[in-house]
Amino acid sequence: MSLKVAIIGGGSSYTPEIIEGILNRYDSFPVTDIALVDIEPGQEKLNIVGELAKRMIQKAGKSINLTCTLDRRKALKGADFVSTQIRVGGLNAREKDERIPLRHGYVGQETNGAGGIFKAFRTIPVLLDLAEDVQEICPNAWIINFTNPAGMVTEAVLRHSAHKKVIGVCNIPFNMRHSVAEILEVPPETVKIEFVGLNHFVFGKKIYAEGIDRTQEVLQKLAGEELDYSPANIVSLGWSKTFIEAMNLLPNPYHQYYFQTREVLEKDIQAFRENGTRAEKVHTLEKSLFELYKNPDLQEKPKELEKRGGAYYSDVACSLMDSIYNNKEDIQTVNTLNNGAIPDLPDDCVIEVNSVITKHGPRPIASGPLPSTIQGSISQMKAFEELVIQAAVTGNYYDAYTSMLMNPLVADEKGSKLLLDELLKAHKEYLPQFTQVS
Amino acid sequence: MSLKVAIIGGGSSYTPEIIEGILNRYDSFPVTDIALVDIEPGQEKLNIVGELAKRMIQKAGKSINLTCTLDRRKALKGADFVSTQIRVGGLNAREKDERIPLRHGYVGQETNGAGGIFKAFRTIPVLLDLAEDVQEICPNAWIINFTNPAGMVTEAVLRHSAHKKVIGVCNIPFNMRHSVAEILEVPPETVKIEFVGLNHFVFGKKIYAEGIDRTQEVLQKLAGEELDYSPANIVSLGWSKTFIEAMNLLPNPYHQYYFQTREVLEKDIQAFRENGTRAEKVHTLEKSLFELYKNPDLQEKPKELEKRGGAYYSDVACSLMDSIYNNKEDIQTVNTLNNGAIPDLPDDCVIEVNSVITKHGPRPIASGPLPSTIQGSISQMKAFEELVIQAAVTGNYYDAYTSMLMNPLVADEKGSKLLLDELLKAHKEYLPQFTQVS
Amino acid sequence: MSLKVAIIGGGSSYTPEIIEGILNRYDSFPVTDIALVDIEPGQEKLNIVGELAKRMIQKAGKSINLTCTLDRRKALKGADFVSTQIRVGGLNAREKDERIPLRHGYVGQETNGAGGIFKAFRTIPVLLDLAEDVQEICPNAWIINFTNPAGMVTEAVLRHSAHKKVIGVCNIPFNMRHSVAEILEVPPETVKIEFVGLNHFVFGKKIYAEGIDRTQEVLQKLAGEELDYSPANIVSLGWSKTFIEAMNLLPNPYHQYYFQTREVLEKDIQAFRENGTRAEKVHTLEKSLFELYKNPDLQEKPKELEKRGGAYYSDVACSLMDSIYNNKEDIQTVNTLNNGAIPDLPDDCVIEVNSVITKHGPRPIASGPLPSTIQGSISQMKAFEELVIQAAVTGNYYDAYTSMLMNPLVADEKGSKLLLDELLKAHKEYLPQFTQVS
Amino acid sequence: MSLKVAIIGGGSSYTPEIIEGILNRYDSFPVTDIALVDIEPGQEKLNIVGELAKRMIQKAGKSINLTCTLDRRKALKGADFVSTQIRVGGLNAREKDERIPLRHGYVGQETNGAGGIFKAFRTIPVLLDLAEDVQEICPNAWIINFTNPAGMVTEAVLRHSAHKKVIGVCNIPFNMRHSVAEILEVPPETVKIEFVGLNHFVFGKKIYAEGIDRTQEVLQKLAGEELDYSPANIVSLGWSKTFIEAMNLLPNPYHQYYFQTREVLEKDIQAFRENGTRAEKVHTLEKSLFELYKNPDLQEKPKELEKRGGAYYSDVACSLMDSIYNNKEDIQTVNTLNNGAIPDLPDDCVIEVNSVITKHGPRPIASGPLPSTIQGSISQMKAFEELVIQAAVTGNYYDAYTSMLMNPLVADEKGSKLLLDELLKAHKEYLPQFTQVS
Repeated sequence: MSLKVAIIGGGSSYTPEIIEGILNRYDSFPVTDIALVDIEPGQEKLNIVGELAKRMIQKAGKSINLTCTLDRRKALKGADFVSTQIRVGGLNAREKDERIPLRHGYVGQETNGAGGIFKAFRTIPVLLDLAEDVQEICPNAWIINFTNPAGMVTEAVLRHSAHKKVIGVCNIPFNMRHSVAEILEVPPETVKIEFVGLNHFVFGKKIYAEGIDRTQEVLQKLAGEELDYSPANIVSLGWSKTFIEAMNLLPNPYHQYYFQTREVLEKDIQAFRENGTRAEKVHTLEKSLFELYKNPDLQEKPKELEKRGGAYYSDVACSLMDSIYNNKEDIQTVNTLNNGAIPDLPDDCVIEVNSVITKHGPRPIASGPLPSTIQGSISQMKAFEELVIQAAVTGNYYDAYTSMLMNPLVADEKGSKLLLDELLKAHKEYLPQFTQVS
Repeated sequence: MSLKVAIIGGGSSYTPEIIEGILNRYDSFPVTDIALVDIEPGQEKLNIVGELAKRMIQKAGKSINLTCTLDRRKALKGADFVSTQIRVGGLNAREKDERIPLRHGYVGQETNGAGGIFKAFRTIPVLLDLAEDVQEICPNAWIINFTNPAGMVTEAVLRHSAHKKVIGVCNIPFNMRHSVAEILEVPPETVKIEFVGLNHFVFGKKIYAEGIDRTQEVLQKLAGEELDYSPANIVSLGWSKTFIEAMNLLPNPYHQYYFQTREVLEKDIQAFRENGTRAEKVHTLEKSLFELYKNPDLQEKPKELEKRGGAYYSDVACSLMDSIYNNKEDIQTVNTLNNGAIPDLPDDCVIEVNSVITKHGPRPIASGPLPSTIQGSISQMKAFEELVIQAAVTGNYYDAYTSMLMNPLVADEKGSKLLLDELLKAHKEYLPQFTQVS
Repeated sequence: MSLKVAIIGGGSSYTPEIIEGILNRYDSFPVTDIALVDIEPGQEKLNIVGELAKRMIQKAGKSINLTCTLDRRKALKGADFVSTQIRVGGLNAREKDERIPLRHGYVGQETNGAGGIFKAFRTIPVLLDLAEDVQEICPNAWIINFTNPAGMVTEAVLRHSAHKKVIGVCNIPFNMRHSVAEILEVPPETVKIEFVGLNHFVFGKKIYAEGIDRTQEVLQKLAGEELDYSPANIVSLGWSKTFIEAMNLLPNPYHQYYFQTREVLEKDIQAFRENGTRAEKVHTLEKSLFELYKNPDLQEKPKELEKRGGAYYSDVACSLMDSIYNNKEDIQTVNTLNNGAIPDLPDDCVIEVNSVITKHGPRPIASGPLPSTIQGSISQMKAFEELVIQAAVTGNYYDAYTSMLMNPLVADEKGSKLLLDELLKAHKEYLPQFTQVS
Repeated sequence: MSLKVAIIGGGSSYTPEIIEGILNRYDSFPVTDIALVDIEPGQEKLNIVGELAKRMIQKAGKSINLTCTLDRRKALKGADFVSTQIRVGGLNAREKDERIPLRHGYVGQETNGAGGIFKAFRTIPVLLDLAEDVQEICPNAWIINFTNPAGMVTEAVLRHSAHKKVIGVCNIPFNMRHSVAEILEVPPETVKIEFVGLNHFVFGKKIYAEGIDRTQEVLQKLAGEELDYSPANIVSLGWSKTFIEAMNLLPNPYHQYYFQTREVLEKDIQAFRENGTRAEKVHTLEKSLFELYKNPDLQEKPKELEKRGGAYYSDVACSLMDSIYNNKEDIQTVNTLNNGAIPDLPDDCVIEVNSVITKHGPRPIASGPLPSTIQGSISQMKAFEELVIQAAVTGNYYDAYTSMLMNPLVADEKGSKLLLDELLKAHKEYLPQFTQVS
């Protein structure tokens, strides 16, 4: 019996991680075929990563047939899982998403603020196109989307494509669980967090270790300390005792953009002036990673990969595929249809939520009304996300403008127009849907 | 470390089943103390059942300390779980609930229609009183309520007592799963049903065996066949092909009262004329059970108990206690707070729903909007239940009247008054809250 | 400036009433053109009514151009208002809607139960077709629909046609206000009732006369009295003191079908056996009306018309057109989009509700959550209506079956099929959408 | 028959306006008694204003008995309407609300941002106390609240007092209608705006003049022009064409704080440095007003009063009292219970909404789901308001902190604490409920 995984964006530097994840789970998740797919400009990287992947498989002694191809439709044939890890426009585009807002005094970040909006604008049409192919060629396959902004992209596919088997994943809940495990000095597997919210805007409501509620203990340790439990791509400032105690919730690292905006902005603008954007740093990091990958003696994922912000993403994805394949009914945190799990939000939107993972997809666990402290901001963020998805699909200038205006990190009549116009121009090549210009 | 279960209504003929359930799970759920509690009129039964229980424990060779007592507050001391299996007014009251409506041409049934309403009126104040004691004496204990009408009773405790650790259980979902297993000729453990609805008004939306969706196959087999998958206390008429195919849902045995009312009523009235009420039959059955129980050589639950409608209730309760105790995170079907799991119903009402069972209680799985075919009747039943709970707590005559009027099995201006007045009079002794009379 | 009213079903015996209504409002609502439209089988009636209408206009000395035509599209040209008063299948079809259910022991009524469902099945496609023509030919015209079941028909047009300017009207709220005025011995214009619910399932929440809350007084007078405030087509049984006081709401005459089902059914079956259906009575009444209409000396609406159940319908319609035309912002009770006015029901469904009438349509007045006593039954009726509309549009047999099953007056597995099959056969000619047969 | 209006804060400089409003409506709203109530520090102003009011009444030749008193309970006796126009802490407090945030680089404004929060903290307990007195002394009286923040204060009374007859009023919708009338060059009475939102966060959805939809025309004129339609207390910056066209809604003047934050802040900080706070300006203005009022020859409201930001507030209040008194059923824009009128918000919160004004209070007109562009920000603002009300009632430090944090004009972890602590200290005397300090 065959079990095929197609990896869209297979030339990514993250690929060795997903290969490792698959190899580690081979006993329960016996993949027979892996197809690495990329686009023409990624051909060289694809070759390098593909060769490394083959060496990894060989070293592991597993009988997995790995192919590298630019022909996506061919790669989708017979696929059971389609994982996506693409970056439309590459690091150059990211660099613009970071640089342009920062230059005008706004948060310039890959998945938040104006930058995140434009990442959505570039990515959503590509994912919708992929979903159409999947629906035609391998309609029973699950799309495991870890392309950011993962929540919006997943919702866009659910709303605007015929293919409904799509799940969004993110490493933030994974990282939070691991950080909490470190704080509590217990193994990560024993930690459970009741998450509530949206991708990159998720909170932890309750923290359990071995089934014991240790929420207060963790929050007390977090409060006021310089504990850093952020992923590599953002530097956390730490939270004050007042913030933590008043909220009585575990924030995620991205919350600093929303609740520490002034400081973050100041710090980011200074860092930008001194060292350029995060994209540029990643660019250098990537280069050295690919140098490593080229080494014909390398037969495993190099440690250096863990310095990337997206580390563990693919581990998260592999766990998910394993649980779906085996109908495990374990609980994982994914981006999926709300269906009432957060009753404050529309039933048909996508949330980030603890879900029972079955062969037939995630079943979100109902968590009841949102805590009153965050009810407003989560509603607002979801409404903002709907505007972004709408604009990404219609290419309507005014839709794009209102999505900028309603983002709390832009939220300015003039700033919205300024950033919108400059980013539309900068990303023109990747935004064919935006025919209309201001 | 001690682990104590207090069984309220310990003199019930069902008790041997719960004792068996506890003994069967001893390895994972190592109970150290069992307290059987009953009221004075039940003293004799309590003694008989208590002695049998002790013989069962002895035979199993487990070191469990079992006590029998009329002092509820004493029994609650140190309890970790409090299971309730009481019948306020006993079988005599049930007999009236069945006889009086039937005599006037209405469904006369233990948990549905006018009878079910009065069972709620009698039971809810007693459970509220118990919940108050639990909250005072053993506030960390979970009340596992299998006193009917289990859904309404559970909601009443959640709404009107300070003790929030209460879960309602029912054997209907258990029975449905077992019946489906028989139909599919697979082991019951491999069958999962996505349940949606209310206690005794629950539907199966999807049926899986070994993770494979076999809904259509089961429905086709059910349609038009004389398959009987009802519990012992109700006789099923079978469902037509049109009904099953149009609904595209698995009905529960009690649905015959709502969708086959005319036939059921005719049959029940005839049966009532010929053989009296079900209560009377149960009375005879009970007597012979207690004769068996008295036998000092009997050291296990006799097979005959399975003829009772409530069979497996206690198995369901033991599984639940085991999973809570061990923080198993497995999925069981319980009556718990909606919290959005059925977004069509209020967040703060009780539904019957597949839930992840944790040390901290059930976490209902969100199932999204109700199928349009049943959205109306489930909303209507829930609204009716709220009226019953309201009346049970206030003892207000008009509240009681509107709850009768809004029950689809009464739903009649004159009939509501007729049945209400006659049942109020008949049950006077157990309805101290109803001081006002029409 | 022209002001044109097209009357679809212009050959109806009710037409003289609408002509009278228009003439009475001529000063504020200066109609210049009336087009009476009918279908071929109605040609003769159309001629008779048309001639009478002309005499009425002439006597009133108004300069209104009245035309009679079978060409609907021509009649729609230039129309500002399109009123609909059609009966698809005529009185023969109504007679079947009444007779077939009654023969099987179910309520047989024009707009409720199985009969009402089939009236919807026959009418909705015709109205959708009309709405399409209106949208094409006179897109700014308001459709004033008084074709029953008015609520469902109006919702069907709003959901399934491009023409959104449609309002449903009914004489029941009008009649209730007039009956209350009689009870209070005050002029009807001084009476206001806060209505809440659905067409033919509407309740009065509060009753004011001259701005004074007189709800309790009216309810007390209603309770237990033989007050008859029903329209001519249904005979009221009166409500008991208990019912009225417990509900604390003003019921509408059709509520007897739901809350006095047994008695009504008994009475109706007996009346049916003795005198045949209401349709047959109406048939006789109609004949004698048209005999009167033929009289060339008759120049006004004859008193005899008031014996019809639909009396004052057209008065209601004329008031509505007048207020729209003049942007009066007065309050009238109409069937229109909920938009939150009853927060328990979907925003996009049609309810019967007090609304501010503007040039741009009705603006429903928000009345807050439904009283708990009726929340369930109104939710259930609305869900039922959605199933009917769905079936009327798809012609799907199972949709039709579930709509029967979920109607509280059928609500029976076998009965639903029995009535459905017999009515489908009986009305075959008017149900082209139902190609599939059981 | 007596008709008494008690004016709480009767020593306010606005009082001559409300006296004028009452005198102008004397024919339909024949007030017999006016009681001006104030607190001891306002004694002198009360005397001055009281004398002026008496001269105004005398000049108008009306027989109205006016009394001035510090005894609120006495003044409430027999009152039919209680209007509130108080400023807890006076202009000094306002000055701090403006100065402290501005000094730290945050919006410092009377009713928005940190200042608005503290105005709520000071005012809500006083209004709750008043509501209790009203409920005891004159339970049938309507409280007409024009004390800011009017929306939150009104909701606090509805949620936390037994007195439910309270309506909040604001001059913003009035001003917007008048500005639109100027733009269209039509009389203000002919203009209707469909308002949707919250007090000081309300949008115009549709604009009609003489029943004709002129929304686009008004928006086009507004877009990019320097039209100033703000009240005197805020200086508008004008809106760009892009903003107006993308939103397709009429913003209110306070929206500049939310969507032009950067510019407004810059301008306000500069103005503050140059001229101090608005409070200080108002202080001067007030002084000169009272000088005028003292003039024994002055017998009418002086023109100068119109320079105050609250001008027309009392006209709005008088119209409202007149319509309630006469059960006019006209449409006014008030702050009242949502009840579903904005289905996106809780039924039991207060919104600013067009309502039919009856003797029994406002009946909000349902406007359906919010436009998607503003759904998020309105939900967020309402959630923020709930946090403020909660904090004002509990005096809980963390509640106060989260209300600061969730205000879009503060929204900063450190800033929230900084402003909270400083303002708590500054207003200590007026915040007895805040016993706990950070």
